[in-house]
Amino acid sequence: MKADWIAVDWGTTRLRAWAMGPDGVRAEAASDEGMGRLDRAGFEPALLRLIGGWLGSGVTPVLACGMVGSRQGWHEVPYRQVPCAPVAAGALAAVPVQDRRIAVQIVPGLAQSVPADVMRGEETQIAGALTLHPGFDGAVCLPGTHSKWAQVSAGEVVSFQTFLTGELFALLSEQSVLRHGLSEGWDDSAFDAGLAEGASRPERLMALLFRLRAEGLLSGLSGAAARSRLSGLLIGAELAAARPWWLGLPILLIGADRLCGLYARGLAAQGATARVLPATDCTLAGLALASGALKGAAA
Amino acid sequence: MKADWIAVDWGTTRLRAWAMGPDGVRAEAASDEGMGRLDRAGFEPALLRLIGGWLGSGVTPVLACGMVGSRQGWHEVPYRQVPCAPVAAGALAAVPVQDRRIAVQIVPGLAQSVPADVMRGEETQIAGALTLHPGFDGAVCLPGTHSKWAQVSAGEVVSFQTFLTGELFALLSEQSVLRHGLSEGWDDSAFDAGLAEGASRPERLMALLFRLRAEGLLSGLSGAAARSRLSGLLIGAELAAARPWWLGLPILLIGADRLCGLYARGLAAQGATARVLPATDCTLAGLALASGALKGAAA
Repeated sequence: MKADWIAVDWGTTRLRAWAMGPDGVRAEAASDEGMGRLDRAGFEPALLRLIGGWLGSGVTPVLACGMVGSRQGWHEVPYRQVPCAPVAAGALAAVPVQDRRIAVQIVPGLAQSVPADVMRGEETQIAGALTLHPGFDGAVCLPGTHSKWAQVSAGEVVSFQTFLTGELFALLSEQSVLRHGLSEGWDDSAFDAGLAEGASRPERLMALLFRLRAEGLLSGLSGAAARSRLSGLLIGAELAAARPWWLGLPILLIGADRLCGLYARGLAAQGATARVLPATDCTLAGLALASGALKGAAA
Repeated sequence: MKADWIAVDWGTTRLRAWAMGPDGVRAEAASDEGMGRLDRAGFEPALLRLIGGWLGSGVTPVLACGMVGSRQGWHEVPYRQVPCAPVAAGALAAVPVQDRRIAVQIVPGLAQSVPADVMRGEETQIAGALTLHPGFDGAVCLPGTHSKWAQVSAGEVVSFQTFLTGELFALLSEQSVLRHGLSEGWDDSAFDAGLAEGASRPERLMALLFRLRAEGLLSGLSGAAARSRLSGLLIGAELAAARPWWLGLPILLIGADRLCGLYARGLAAQGATARVLPATDCTLAGLALASGALKGAAA
């Protein structure tokens, strides 16, 4: 099995690749050789370990998005400035390689000057979402370690905002004093209560966190309920701070099913409806768009 | 040198002890054998390693405060419920010991039912502050890993609130993505700017954190300025959430000079004046009060 071209999503912790043919995905592979584990010389070998079997006798185009294009990545690619289309075929950056069987290009990330913000990888997913929903105008939310909210209009990313929600949840639930009172398991009503509190009183977030620990000690709050309420508090505070991005607008959520489900539930509690798109579909559609493989779609 | 009695501040990470005589402190010692590093059987040996040289032929009273009285500590001591005096001599809990040269007692922490909150150790410092400032009515703030704000009136702790500010600062500055853009050094104006932003727009805290990283990448925000602004943002958000505790009231700050200085600076920017008391003075005054060593002062 040989690939016509290869799509790559190369983030901080994961490397994922898809062998693309005329009818879409022909094979896929993944490894944990994310940007964070590699020095500059390590990227090409890591890529070849994953995709070597898909290469033919000619030159196979490889198109990558994500942190691979950052200063700590394989090859630093300057950001494009919003407002702009999320990806533009003409703006791809070629990466010098040793192996003549591949021609590697990286999709540039986006930057916003005021207030300062950056994204690498999400622009490709937003482009894919617009391919899947042509003419979409509204808010695109990409929940995750670093959640992004983007205002999309007339095919362009107008502005965006990053939230540390996922990273805060991981740090607080795994490394702070709260970890002593948290356990696996899930409690929808505790999530809903936390979400309502975080969304309606985000200015009190700093005061609401330790209460999880205190209720565990004093009134037997279960570990699952405490963990669910913490998730609700943080997502609720994000939704409150992101309200200017979504209030009264159509909303697309791009990401993992489970996490998008929590955001959709939270938005519903705030009176908003969101449509969920699988992250991989968006990534592949965005890379296909950037590669020009979708006829006439490349900007 | 023998001690009349021994004062002990036993927290999660540190063990500190003072040999007390008729005129106050005669010697002091400290180790890193905090509660977090000891199992139940390890407490008495850890204490004796530190204070063994201060023991005479009779029984020396040892009075301890802090996490040593928690469920994970040497001996669990039930909380006292606010509103109540911060310490009460009659409420000390005796700890069974092997070594007959010591008689160990622990000061109980305080609990509040609604909203749930707990403290262990700070009650002793508050009691000490009231000894140093008899008749004080107002707000007592104890900045630290887990900052506490207490409403004190007529010699009692009426209510209190814990904030994870110090722990959040440590996690974000040392372990989150923000660490890449932070460095040692200090920038007062960046702290002031962060404080103003955090205090006036606490509901936007979730949106303001990642900006530190983005400004480092896009506009060369220095590591020292980013770290100072992060500190300001978090302390500002705490001051905003704690406003009901301090607005219009006299304020005492108990803690390390440097940290109390930041809180005093932040409060001043919010139009409030705070008096700073050294933490050790308060701890020793509180333990002396609890021990009954201050004549007539024990409740």
